[in-house]
Amino acid sequence: MNTAQTRNGIDLAQMTQTLETLDRDRDLTRFRFRARNRWITGGENRSTIRDFYGAGAEDQSRTEPFCYTNGEPPILLGHNEGANPVEYLLHALAGCVTTTTVLHATARGIHIDELSTELEGEIDLQGLLAMDPDVQAGYREIRIRMQISADCSDDELDDLIGFARDHSPVCSTICRPVPVTVERVKSAGSVAA
Amino acid sequence: MNTAQTRNGIDLAQMTQTLETLDRDRDLTRFRFRARNRWITGGENRSTIRDFYGAGAEDQSRTEPFCYTNGEPPILLGHNEGANPVEYLLHALAGCVTTTTVLHATARGIHIDELSTELEGEIDLQGLLAMDPDVQAGYREIRIRMQISADCSDDELDDLIGFARDHSPVCSTICRPVPVTVERVKSAGSVAA
Repeated sequence: MNTAQTRNGIDLAQMTQTLETLDRDRDLTRFRFRARNRWITGGENRSTIRDFYGAGAEDQSRTEPFCYTNGEPPILLGHNEGANPVEYLLHALAGCVTTTTVLHATARGIHIDELSTELEGEIDLQGLLAMDPDVQAGYREIRIRMQISADCSDDELDDLIGFARDHSPVCSTICRPVPVTVERVKSAGSVAA
Repeated sequence: MNTAQTRNGIDLAQMTQTLETLDRDRDLTRFRFRARNRWITGGENRSTIRDFYGAGAEDQSRTEPFCYTNGEPPILLGHNEGANPVEYLLHALAGCVTTTTVLHATARGIHIDELSTELEGEIDLQGLLAMDPDVQAGYREIRIRMQISADCSDDELDDLIGFARDHSPVCSTICRPVPVTVERVKSAGSVAA
Protein backbone atom coordinates (compact mmCIF):
# COMPACT_ATOMS: atom_id res chain seq x y z
CA MET A 1 0.00 0.00 0.00
CA ASN A 2 1.54 3.28 -1.06
CA THR A 3 0.66 6.72 0.26
CA ALA A 4 2.17 10.08 -0.60
CA GLN A 5 4.78 9.43 2.10
CA THR A 6 5.86 5.89 1.21
CA ARG A 7 6.72 4.03 -1.96
CA ASN A 8 7.23 0.25 -1.98
CA GLY A 9 6.99 0.37 1.81
CA ILE A 10 9.91 2.78 2.09
CA ASP A 11 9.47 6.11 3.88
CA LEU A 12 10.42 8.66 1.23
CA ALA A 13 11.29 11.48 3.64
CA GLN A 14 13.51 9.13 5.63
CA MET A 15 15.17 7.85 2.46
CA THR A 16 15.91 11.37 1.23
CA GLN A 17 17.26 12.42 4.61
CA THR A 18 19.50 9.32 4.84
CA LEU A 19 20.89 9.84 1.34
CA GLU A 20 21.57 13.53 2.01
CA THR A 21 23.28 12.76 5.31
CA LEU A 22 25.53 10.10 3.72
CA ASP A 23 26.28 12.37 0.77
CA ARG A 24 27.41 15.23 3.04
CA ASP A 25 29.82 13.06 5.04
CA ARG A 26 31.17 10.11 3.08
CA ASP A 27 32.82 8.70 6.23
CA LEU A 28 29.33 7.76 7.40
CA THR A 29 28.91 5.26 4.54
CA ARG A 30 31.31 2.75 6.09
CA PHE A 31 29.47 -0.10 7.82
CA ARG A 32 30.91 -3.05 9.71
CA PHE A 33 28.66 -6.12 10.06
CA ARG A 34 29.22 -9.03 12.45
CA ALA A 35 28.06 -12.53 13.33
CA ARG A 36 28.99 -14.87 16.18
CA ASN A 37 28.62 -18.60 15.74
CA ARG A 38 28.87 -21.56 18.08
CA TRP A 39 29.19 -25.20 17.07
CA ILE A 40 26.58 -27.48 18.62
CA THR A 41 27.39 -30.95 17.24
CA GLY A 42 27.97 -32.59 13.86
CA GLY A 43 26.67 -30.30 11.13
CA GLU A 44 24.64 -28.16 13.56
CA ASN A 45 25.78 -24.70 14.63
CA ARG A 46 24.07 -21.47 15.60
CA SER A 47 24.72 -17.80 14.89
CA THR A 48 23.70 -14.78 16.89
CA ILE A 49 23.53 -11.47 15.03
CA ARG A 50 22.87 -8.16 16.72
CA ASP A 51 25.39 -5.33 16.80
CA PHE A 52 26.94 -3.57 13.83
CA TYR A 53 28.74 -0.32 13.22
CA GLY A 54 27.39 2.16 10.71
CA ALA A 55 26.81 5.86 10.03
CA GLY A 56 29.56 6.70 12.50
CA ALA A 57 28.24 4.81 15.53
CA GLU A 58 27.45 1.40 16.98
CA ASP A 59 23.82 0.57 16.21
CA GLN A 60 21.58 0.29 19.28
CA SER A 61 18.28 -0.58 17.62
CA ARG A 62 18.20 -4.31 18.41
CA THR A 63 17.37 -5.27 21.97
CA GLU A 64 17.57 -9.01 21.25
CA PRO A 65 19.90 -10.85 18.87
CA PHE A 66 18.64 -12.73 15.84
CA CYS A 67 19.44 -16.46 16.10
CA TYR A 68 19.78 -18.77 13.10
CA THR A 69 20.66 -22.48 13.04
CA ASN A 70 22.66 -24.18 10.32
CA GLY A 71 21.99 -27.88 9.83
CA GLU A 72 22.44 -30.57 7.22
CA PRO A 73 20.02 -33.08 5.67
CA PRO A 74 20.50 -36.79 6.45
CA ILE A 75 22.23 -37.43 3.12
CA LEU A 76 24.88 -34.94 4.30
CA LEU A 77 25.13 -36.61 7.72
CA GLY A 78 22.78 -34.25 9.59
CA HIS A 79 19.24 -34.19 10.93
CA ASN A 80 17.71 -31.18 9.12
CA GLU A 81 18.30 -28.94 12.13
CA GLY A 82 18.01 -25.97 9.74
CA ALA A 83 18.87 -25.11 6.16
CA ASN A 84 22.51 -25.76 5.39
CA PRO A 85 25.08 -23.00 4.88
CA VAL A 86 25.04 -23.08 1.06
CA GLU A 87 21.24 -22.74 1.17
CA TYR A 88 21.50 -19.78 3.58
CA LEU A 89 23.86 -18.21 1.05
CA LEU A 90 21.08 -18.40 -1.58
CA HIS A 91 18.65 -16.80 0.92
CA ALA A 92 21.13 -13.96 1.50
CA LEU A 93 21.60 -13.45 -2.24
CA ALA A 94 17.86 -13.53 -2.97
CA GLY A 95 17.16 -11.00 -0.23
CA CYS A 96 19.94 -8.67 -1.26
CA VAL A 97 19.06 -8.57 -4.95
CA THR A 98 15.41 -8.05 -3.98
CA THR A 99 16.09 -5.22 -1.52
CA THR A 100 18.51 -3.55 -3.94
CA THR A 101 15.86 -3.75 -6.66
CA VAL A 102 13.21 -2.26 -4.36
CA LEU A 103 15.52 0.52 -3.15
CA HIS A 104 16.51 1.69 -6.62
CA ALA A 105 12.95 1.29 -7.93
CA THR A 106 11.85 3.60 -5.13
CA ALA A 107 14.54 6.14 -6.03
CA ARG A 108 13.41 5.97 -9.69
CA GLY A 109 9.76 6.48 -8.83
CA ILE A 110 8.75 2.94 -9.82
CA HIS A 111 5.99 1.21 -7.84
CA ILE A 112 6.51 -2.53 -7.52
CA ASP A 113 3.44 -4.75 -7.23
CA GLU A 114 5.06 -8.15 -6.85
CA LEU A 115 8.59 -9.46 -6.80
CA SER A 116 9.62 -13.08 -6.30
CA THR A 117 12.74 -15.02 -7.13
CA GLU A 118 13.84 -18.61 -7.52
CA LEU A 119 17.53 -19.41 -7.12
CA GLU A 120 19.51 -22.47 -8.05
CA GLY A 121 23.18 -23.34 -7.99
CA GLU A 122 25.30 -26.44 -8.43
CA ILE A 123 27.98 -27.70 -6.10
CA ASP A 124 30.18 -30.71 -6.75
CA LEU A 125 30.95 -32.38 -3.41
CA GLN A 126 34.29 -33.59 -4.76
CA GLY A 127 35.54 -30.11 -3.80
CA LEU A 128 34.37 -30.14 -0.17
CA LEU A 129 35.55 -33.72 0.27
CA ALA A 130 38.93 -33.10 -1.40
CA MET A 131 38.29 -36.00 -3.78
CA ASP A 132 39.58 -34.06 -6.80
CA PRO A 133 41.92 -31.04 -6.49
CA ASP A 134 40.62 -29.66 -9.80
CA VAL A 135 37.07 -29.33 -8.48
CA GLN A 136 36.26 -26.09 -6.62
CA ALA A 137 34.36 -26.48 -3.36
CA GLY A 138 31.84 -23.70 -3.99
CA TYR A 139 29.05 -22.92 -6.43
CA ARG A 140 30.02 -22.94 -10.10
CA GLU A 141 27.40 -20.33 -10.85
CA ILE A 142 24.11 -19.20 -9.38
CA ARG A 143 21.02 -18.54 -11.46
CA ILE A 144 18.26 -16.22 -10.32
CA ARG A 145 14.88 -16.25 -12.02
CA MET A 146 12.94 -13.15 -11.07
CA GLN A 147 9.26 -12.44 -11.55
CA ILE A 148 8.44 -8.78 -11.10
CA SER A 149 5.48 -6.60 -11.93
CA ALA A 150 5.65 -2.82 -11.68
CA ASP A 151 4.24 0.36 -13.21
CA CYS A 152 6.96 0.75 -15.85
CA SER A 153 7.98 -0.66 -19.21
CA ASP A 154 9.82 -3.95 -19.74
CA ASP A 155 12.90 -1.99 -20.81
CA GLU A 156 12.85 -0.01 -17.59
CA LEU A 157 12.43 -3.23 -15.64
CA ASP A 158 15.39 -4.87 -17.34
CA ASP A 159 17.53 -1.80 -16.71
CA LEU A 160 16.46 -1.77 -13.04
CA ILE A 161 17.23 -5.47 -12.58
CA GLY A 162 20.66 -5.20 -14.21
CA PHE A 163 21.46 -2.18 -12.05
CA ALA A 164 20.35 -4.04 -8.90
CA ARG A 165 22.47 -7.04 -9.81
CA ASP A 166 25.53 -4.78 -10.21
CA HIS A 167 24.91 -2.88 -6.95
CA SER A 168 23.73 -5.65 -4.59
CA PRO A 169 26.30 -6.10 -1.79
CA VAL A 170 25.81 -9.88 -1.52
CA CYS A 171 25.86 -10.33 -5.30
CA SER A 172 29.02 -8.22 -5.47
CA THR A 173 30.63 -10.35 -2.73
CA ILE A 174 29.89 -13.52 -4.68
CA CYS A 175 30.76 -12.22 -8.17
CA ARG A 176 34.12 -10.73 -7.16
CA PRO A 177 36.97 -12.54 -5.38
CA VAL A 178 36.68 -11.33 -1.75
CA PRO A 179 39.47 -12.32 0.67
CA VAL A 180 38.42 -14.37 3.70
CA THR A 181 40.94 -14.73 6.51
CA VAL A 182 40.69 -17.23 9.36
CA GLU A 183 42.68 -16.45 12.48
CA ARG A 184 42.85 -18.91 15.35
CA VAL A 185 42.56 -17.10 18.65
CA LYS A 186 44.02 -18.60 21.79
CA SER A 187 42.24 -19.44 25.01
CA ALA A 188 41.57 -15.90 26.26
CA GLY A 189 37.79 -16.26 26.66
CA SER A 190 35.21 -17.42 24.18
CA VAL A 191 34.69 -15.26 21.10
CA ALA A 192 31.07 -16.37 20.80
CA ALA A 193 28.15 -14.86 22.65
CA MET B 1 29.47 -36.81 23.62
CA ASN B 2 31.41 -39.34 21.56
CA THR B 3 30.91 -43.09 21.50
CA ALA B 4 32.68 -45.73 19.46
CA GLN B 5 30.13 -45.09 16.68
CA THR B 6 30.22 -41.29 16.52
CA ARG B 7 32.90 -38.63 16.54
CA ASN B 8 32.04 -34.94 16.86
CA GLY B 9 28.40 -35.93 16.57
CA ILE B 10 28.94 -37.56 13.17
CA ASP B 11 28.00 -41.20 12.64
CA LEU B 12 31.26 -42.82 11.52
CA ALA B 13 29.68 -45.79 9.74
CA GLN B 14 27.34 -43.47 7.83
CA MET B 15 30.23 -41.15 6.94
CA THR B 16 32.34 -44.04 5.62
CA GLN B 17 29.42 -45.42 3.63
CA THR B 18 28.63 -42.01 2.12
CA LEU B 19 32.24 -41.40 1.12
CA GLU B 20 32.55 -44.87 -0.44
CA THR B 21 29.30 -44.45 -2.36
CA LEU B 22 30.37 -41.05 -3.74
CA ASP B 23 33.84 -42.35 -4.56
CA ARG B 24 32.43 -45.28 -6.59
CA ASP B 25 30.15 -43.08 -8.69
CA ARG B 26 31.43 -39.54 -9.13
CA ASP B 27 28.18 -38.52 -10.83
CA LEU B 28 26.55 -38.71 -7.40
CA THR B 29 28.67 -35.83 -6.06
CA ARG B 30 26.74 -33.21 -8.04
CA PHE B 31 24.24 -31.33 -5.87
CA ARG B 32 21.81 -28.59 -6.86
CA PHE B 33 20.54 -26.32 -4.06
CA ARG B 34 17.57 -23.96 -4.29
CA ALA B 35 15.78 -21.13 -2.54
CA ARG B 36 12.53 -19.32 -3.30
CA ASN B 37 12.03 -15.78 -2.08
CA ARG B 38 9.06 -13.42 -1.99
CA TRP B 39 9.17 -9.69 -1.37
CA ILE B 40 6.90 -8.51 1.46
CA THR B 41 7.46 -4.73 1.61
CA GLY B 42 10.39 -2.31 1.85
CA GLY B 43 13.49 -4.21 2.98
CA GLU B 44 11.48 -7.23 4.15
CA ASN B 45 11.38 -10.47 2.15
CA ARG B 46 11.09 -14.15 2.97
CA SER B 47 12.74 -17.30 1.63
CA THR B 48 11.46 -20.84 1.70
CA ILE B 49 14.04 -23.61 1.39
CA ARG B 50 13.14 -27.27 1.08
CA ASP B 51 13.97 -29.33 -1.98
CA PHE B 52 17.38 -29.99 -3.46
CA TYR B 53 18.92 -32.48 -5.85
CA GLY B 54 21.84 -34.61 -4.74
CA ALA B 55 23.34 -38.09 -4.89
CA GLY B 56 21.38 -38.77 -8.06
CA ALA B 57 17.88 -37.96 -6.80
CA GLU B 58 15.58 -35.25 -5.48
CA ASP B 59 15.84 -35.17 -1.68
CA GLN B 60 12.64 -36.12 0.15
CA SER B 61 13.77 -35.73 3.75
CA ARG B 62 12.08 -32.42 4.53
CA THR B 63 8.35 -32.48 5.06
CA GLU B 64 8.15 -28.74 5.80
CA PRO B 65 10.18 -25.91 4.26
CA PHE B 66 12.55 -23.78 6.29
CA CYS B 67 11.47 -20.12 6.29
CA TYR B 68 13.83 -17.20 6.86
CA THR B 69 13.05 -13.48 6.83
CA ASN B 70 15.43 -10.78 5.64
CA GLY B 71 14.95 -7.34 7.15
CA GLU B 72 16.86 -4.13 7.65
CA PRO B 73 17.56 -2.00 10.74
CA PRO B 74 15.93 1.46 10.98
CA ILE B 75 19.14 3.19 9.89
CA LEU B 76 18.81 1.24 6.62
CA LEU B 77 15.12 2.14 6.28
CA GLY B 78 13.72 -1.07 7.80
CA HIS B 79 12.15 -2.29 11.04
CA ASN B 80 14.51 -5.11 12.11
CA GLU B 81 12.18 -7.73 10.63
CA GLY B 82 15.18 -10.10 10.59
CA ALA B 83 18.92 -9.93 10.05
CA ASN B 84 19.79 -8.26 6.79
CA PRO B 85 21.18 -10.13 3.75
CA VAL B 86 24.84 -9.22 4.31
CA GLU B 87 24.53 -10.49 7.90
CA TYR B 88 22.93 -13.75 6.69
CA LEU B 89 25.95 -14.11 4.39
CA LEU B 90 28.21 -14.04 7.47
CA HIS B 91 25.99 -16.68 9.14
CA ALA B 92 26.32 -18.89 6.05
CA LEU B 93 30.10 -18.44 5.98
CA ALA B 94 30.49 -19.12 9.72
CA GLY B 95 28.42 -22.27 9.47
CA CYS B 96 30.19 -23.58 6.40
CA VAL B 97 33.72 -23.08 7.73
CA THR B 98 32.61 -24.68 11.02
CA THR B 99 30.98 -27.72 9.42
CA THR B 100 33.91 -28.19 7.03
CA THR B 101 36.30 -28.04 10.00
CA VAL B 102 34.21 -30.60 11.93
CA LEU B 103 33.90 -32.92 8.93
CA HIS B 104 37.61 -33.04 8.18
CA ALA B 105 38.52 -33.23 11.89
CA THR B 106 36.28 -36.29 12.08
CA ALA B 107 37.98 -37.85 9.04
CA ARG B 108 41.38 -37.17 10.65
CA GLY B 109 40.39 -38.72 13.98
CA ILE B 110 40.41 -35.42 15.85
CA HIS B 111 37.84 -34.88 18.64
CA ILE B 112 36.67 -31.27 18.90
CA ASP B 113 35.61 -30.00 22.32
CA GLU B 114 34.56 -26.47 21.43
CA LEU B 115 34.45 -24.37 18.30
CA SER B 116 33.18 -20.82 18.03
CA THR B 117 33.75 -18.03 15.55
CA GLU B 118 33.35 -14.30 15.32
CA LEU B 119 33.05 -12.72 11.86
CA GLU B 120 33.36 -9.15 10.75
CA GLY B 121 33.38 -7.46 7.38
CA GLU B 122 33.22 -3.92 6.07
CA ILE B 123 30.86 -2.58 3.44
CA ASP B 124 30.92 0.94 2.06
CA LEU B 125 27.35 1.97 1.22
CA GLN B 126 28.62 4.24 -1.56
CA GLY B 127 28.65 1.03 -3.64
CA LEU B 128 25.03 0.00 -2.99
CA LEU B 129 23.82 3.56 -3.40
CA ALA B 130 25.86 4.16 -6.59
CA MET B 131 27.41 7.26 -5.03
CA ASP B 132 30.90 6.40 -6.29
CA PRO B 133 31.51 4.06 -9.26
CA ASP B 134 34.96 3.15 -7.87
CA VAL B 135 33.48 1.68 -4.67
CA GLN B 136 32.41 -1.98 -4.84
CA ALA B 137 29.00 -2.78 -3.36
CA GLY B 138 30.10 -5.88 -1.44
CA TYR B 139 32.43 -6.77 1.40
CA ARG B 140 36.06 -5.70 0.95
CA GLU B 141 37.22 -8.64 3.02
CA ILE B 142 35.80 -10.85 5.76
CA ARG B 143 37.74 -11.74 8.88
CA ILE B 144 36.97 -14.87 10.89
CA ARG B 145 38.34 -15.28 14.39
CA MET B 146 38.03 -18.91 15.48
CA GLN B 147 38.38 -20.36 18.92
CA ILE B 148 38.76 -24.12 18.88
CA SER B 149 39.87 -26.72 21.38
CA ALA B 150 40.54 -30.32 20.35
CA ASP B 151 42.70 -33.31 21.23
CA CYS B 152 45.55 -32.45 18.86
CA SER B 153 48.55 -30.14 18.62
CA ASP B 154 48.40 -26.47 17.65
CA ASP B 155 50.16 -27.33 14.39
CA GLU B 156 47.52 -29.94 13.57
CA LEU B 157 44.80 -27.40 14.41
CA ASP B 158 46.31 -24.76 12.14
CA ASP B 159 46.60 -27.29 9.31
CA LEU B 160 42.98 -28.38 9.84
CA ILE B 161 41.69 -24.79 9.84
CA GLY B 162 43.61 -23.86 6.69
CA PHE B 163 42.31 -26.99 4.97
CA ALA B 164 38.73 -26.19 6.02
CA ARG B 165 39.07 -22.64 4.74
CA ASP B 166 40.21 -23.94 1.35
CA HIS B 167 37.48 -26.60 1.10
CA SER B 168 34.44 -24.78 2.52
CA PRO B 169 31.82 -24.34 -0.23
CA VAL B 170 30.59 -20.94 1.04
CA CYS B 171 34.15 -19.68 1.59
CA SER B 172 35.06 -20.88 -1.91
CA THR B 173 32.03 -19.08 -3.36
CA ILE B 174 33.10 -15.81 -1.69
CA CYS B 175 36.86 -16.08 -2.37
CA ARG B 176 36.49 -16.89 -6.07
CA PRO B 177 34.56 -14.89 -8.66
CA VAL B 178 31.32 -16.87 -9.13
CA PRO B 179 28.95 -15.80 -11.93
CA VAL B 180 25.44 -14.77 -10.88
CA THR B 181 22.84 -14.43 -13.61
CA VAL B 182 19.46 -12.75 -13.20
CA GLU B 183 16.78 -13.69 -15.70
CA ARG B 184 13.43 -11.95 -15.72
CA VAL B 185 10.63 -14.43 -16.26
CA LYS B 186 7.37 -13.34 -17.77
CA SER B 187 3.91 -13.66 -16.33
CA ALA B 188 3.50 -17.45 -16.65
CA GLY B 189 2.72 -18.10 -12.97
CA SER B 190 4.61 -17.11 -9.86
CA VAL B 191 8.06 -18.62 -9.42
CA ALA B 192 7.81 -18.38 -5.63
CA ALA B 193 6.19 -20.95 -3.38
